[in-house]
Amino acid sequence: MFTLFNKYLHKERAFIKAITNVTNISPDNVYLYTLALTHTSFAKQNVSGKQETNERLEFLGDSILGAVVAEFLFKKFPYKDEGFLTEIRSRIVNRESLNTIALRIGLDTLVKIDQNNYNARYKSINGNALEALVGAIYLDKGYKTTKKFILDKLIKPHFDLPTLVSTTVNFKSKLIEWAQSQNKSIRFDIVQQKQSGSTTEFTSEVTLDDKPVTSGTGFSKKKAEQAAAQKALTLLKIA
Amino acid sequence: MFTLFNKYLHKERAFIKAITNVTNISPDNVYLYTLALTHTSFAKQNVSGKQETNERLEFLGDSILGAVVAEFLFKKFPYKDEGFLTEIRSRIVNRESLNTIALRIGLDTLVKIDQNNYNARYKSINGNALEALVGAIYLDKGYKTTKKFILDKLIKPHFDLPTLVSTTVNFKSKLIEWAQSQNKSIRFDIVQQKQSGSTTEFTSEVTLDDKPVTSGTGFSKKKAEQAAAQKALTLLKIA
Repeated sequence: MFTLFNKYLHKERAFIKAITNVTNISPDNVYLYTLALTHTSFAKQNVSGKQETNERLEFLGDSILGAVVAEFLFKKFPYKDEGFLTEIRSRIVNRESLNTIALRIGLDTLVKIDQNNYNARYKSINGNALEALVGAIYLDKGYKTTKKFILDKLIKPHFDLPTLVSTTVNFKSKLIEWAQSQNKSIRFDIVQQKQSGSTTEFTSEVTLDDKPVTSGTGFSKKKAEQAAAQKALTLLKIA
Repeated sequence: MFTLFNKYLHKERAFIKAITNVTNISPDNVYLYTLALTHTSFAKQNVSGKQETNERLEFLGDSILGAVVAEFLFKKFPYKDEGFLTEIRSRIVNRESLNTIALRIGLDTLVKIDQNNYNARYKSINGNALEALVGAIYLDKGYKTTKKFILDKLIKPHFDLPTLVSTTVNFKSKLIEWAQSQNKSIRFDIVQQKQSGSTTEFTSEVTLDDKPVTSGTGFSKKKAEQAAAQKALTLLKIA
């Protein structure tokens, strides 16, 4: 009995040490971190009664991550508009990049999954666990510590902002390139201008092979075209 | 000259007082609040050179609001899953409800718009200004004060959670009701079950008048149906 307890303590100490190595944070409420790093597949098999998964923590972590990155970009780019900030944020916080960061910081070695159950479908396991870990840190340590963890461990070492900015998607160009690859003709027309006081709202219509696809509005011609192109990309299922 | 300055001071004092009345917060950096409450229409006409609008603050405020409400719901509903939390949050934080809250706390009387330019199109002015105000408070006072403002002034007095929960949208019911109103036949079929270990992923297909519309997946039949129904509602443009 005593030996079992020692074994348990040893295992818990090893887990705490591993968490500290990855995050630079010394956990207080270890349970939260264990939960964050336990995949549903494992939780399902091992917990009797009410099943606790890391999906609630993922929901929380996702929103904290979004807020911290929003502030970071807001301050980093004082002269850029909200469309730009939204676009750059979505390029930092998305499934694919979260998975990559999770692997780079070695989170995959800590994630508990049912190995027999491992499946290529679960390709977002590590990214999801990373979001859940952010949620756990937030509940355990508060906003300030979590913000520091996100910026120092997840964002700054893994993203080169100038590169990210220079490759930011231009929806109009993307749509035009796609149309050309499909040998389709494409046209953007400003079909409406609504003037009210000094403000003008433009409506741009996208036409593909002489058929109107969709339209978008904005307070400049460029913004209206981007909005229309973005909608067209979604409608045409060009990801 | 002196009189003009006094007039300016008086105006600024009145603005600070009004902000304090609405928010219970005494602003330090008044400029942030002025910016938050200035609509683009007004900014366009009045600022020469670089135009500053409240849209960047809106981006920031939106994400802080999302995070605070996420934590609030996470703690309020310890036994609900992330799908439920996401749904309830989107019912609290959306254009319409933000507009309503903005009016209830009297924010509309503080929003500077170009009156000549006022237009029914700008129906989200007050909700957007509210998000921008959250961004301004965050930059001026930090996370803790902002969280308190959001919970005490925006959420708790204006939402009755039990009512919100009991009226939470059930996508499947909504789609069925719509189909009935249109005299269309509707069917949900589980068309696939992928087993891996102890976890099963279900795929539900929605069929409308014998034509397949779309499908959705989930780790229970119910979740798969909800996912399929939600996608169908979007595809069929039933808002």
